Amino acid sequence: MCPAPLSANAPRGFIIPIGGGEDRVKERHIHRRFVELSGGTGADIVVIPTASELESTGQDYNRIFRDLGAAEVDFLPITRRADCDNPRYLEMLDRATGIFLTGGNQLRLSTILGGTGIAQRIRRRNAAGVHVAGTSAGASIMSEHMIAGGDSNSSPVEGAVSLAPGLGLTNAVIIDQHFTQRNRLGRLLSASSYNPFLIGLGIDEDTAAFIGPDGVFEVVGSGTVTVVDASELTHSSMWEARPGQALTLLGLKVHVMGEGCRYDLNGRHAFAPDVHAAFCTLPNEKVSTH
Amino acid sequence: MCPAPLSANAPRGFIIPIGGGEDRVKERHIHRRFVELSGGTGADIVVIPTASELESTGQDYNRIFRDLGAAEVDFLPITRRADCDNPRYLEMLDRATGIFLTGGNQLRLSTILGGTGIAQRIRRRNAAGVHVAGTSAGASIMSEHMIAGGDSNSSPVEGAVSLAPGLGLTNAVIIDQHFTQRNRLGRLLSASSYNPFLIGLGIDEDTAAFIGPDGVFEVVGSGTVTVVDASELTHSSMWEARPGQALTLLGLKVHVMGEGCRYDLNGRHAFAPDVHAAFCTLPNEKVSTH
Repeated sequence: MCPAPLSANAPRGFIIPIGGGEDRVKERHIHRRFVELSGGTGADIVVIPTASELESTGQDYNRIFRDLGAAEVDFLPITRRADCDNPRYLEMLDRATGIFLTGGNQLRLSTILGGTGIAQRIRRRNAAGVHVAGTSAGASIMSEHMIAGGDSNSSPVEGAVSLAPGLGLTNAVIIDQHFTQRNRLGRLLSASSYNPFLIGLGIDEDTAAFIGPDGVFEVVGSGTVTVVDASELTHSSMWEARPGQALTLLGLKVHVMGEGCRYDLNGRHAFAPDVHAAFCTLPNEKVSTH
Repeated sequence: MCPAPLSANAPRGFIIPIGGGEDRVKERHIHRRFVELSGGTGADIVVIPTASELESTGQDYNRIFRDLGAAEVDFLPITRRADCDNPRYLEMLDRATGIFLTGGNQLRLSTILGGTGIAQRIRRRNAAGVHVAGTSAGASIMSEHMIAGGDSNSSPVEGAVSLAPGLGLTNAVIIDQHFTQRNRLGRLLSASSYNPFLIGLGIDEDTAAFIGPDGVFEVVGSGTVTVVDASELTHSSMWEARPGQALTLLGLKVHVMGEGCRYDLNGRHAFAPDVHAAFCTLPNEKVSTH
């Protein structure tokens, strides 16, 4: 699905894919920034723990966001499609200033939420300015095209990755998580190469991309976001490769981005952290801010 | 050390780093091509098993190269620096048409062979046209700057990789092996970013780069060679990163190259396999051949 149309009055909310394994105990930079963005002590956070099969997941995140000062925190105990008709859940989403999708299995998320009023409401609320964060499986589901599964620890090979339709909050990127930790460059490259218009985002654990309404994201956390830009590919063997055969992909542009770096998804340009703006930008180039 | 000066009469021999784990039993494409390049039924192959601590390694490779039809095969049982003074070994290298460095530990290779007559003779013979192949540790040692060790499964971080002087058959590249299988992109990126003039070659298992005397290499094998070209880097945080901090590297060019692809180390240009030459080359661009 394409992103829901914007309302006339408000910019789109942030979209915040997190690579999983984020710090929940110490500084909690990523969760803290999400709460602040969502209104701080005025924040109303709704957690969707559907990706997880653990009963405690919803409560765990309730505690984290309360500890960080959010005024209201609650979770939607959705475990099957029938739960998605509950009008109380839709009301909760209508009041929310921030929505959080937990980790687990992204196919649980897409098969339970897909095509329901809950999915529609998340998309509409994001278009109306509500911020949506998701970690691990909750990060993968955010884009129109979702990495449903595939081989870790593999060169890019034909058949290394399977795609499924995601929530469609953005159609500019395809997201992989636990990126360095699970050696997923091969499958992200395979995914990007199906159609090089997609920008691949490989997000490490304890790391997030805060994608602003202007299409510029900033990296927050202790790892890196690896951006794969295949738009200048000079050759791809994807269409003719045999199943399992190693792919050839010539002319990839890759940026490895640590904390504070920004990337403009529209202009496909990477910016070093602000302190180095003078060094990293070319003459006559405008640094995007948000 | 820089590559030894060329003789007036002969082109330099091929330099053939192999990513380890190459097929030794079935088709043996890589070993077969090395034997053919070295003269086929007229080949005289000398194996240097010094990287390995297994006593059987030399004999194992003797058998492989004999099976593939080489006329003469022998190995140098060098296990300590004093062995390197043996004049018979130098004579064997003088007669060889191909030299093969086995896998094991590249620091064993560099600490035992470094600065001895054996190392000097390998360099001189390669400059005079003798082909030198090496697998795993034997691949790492080939370049002037060698990856001695470091973290696999890591984002590029300050301190993730340690370098040491290698054999210096080439100074254009820095080589990592078991590349995808051991998730070594992070450490190759760290190594390349110390000084972006180095082209990083990440070589998968059962895969080799046949680097010709014209500086063009061809990929042979079932995996890929990942080329990291950092020469157009717009920003690197390497000089200022704290130990263990994730690095920012913006503007990397990356090519993932399957069998039959070629790369020109001088012009820094990747070519798809010959059947696609017309598609992948730009107008007025000459396809290098060897």
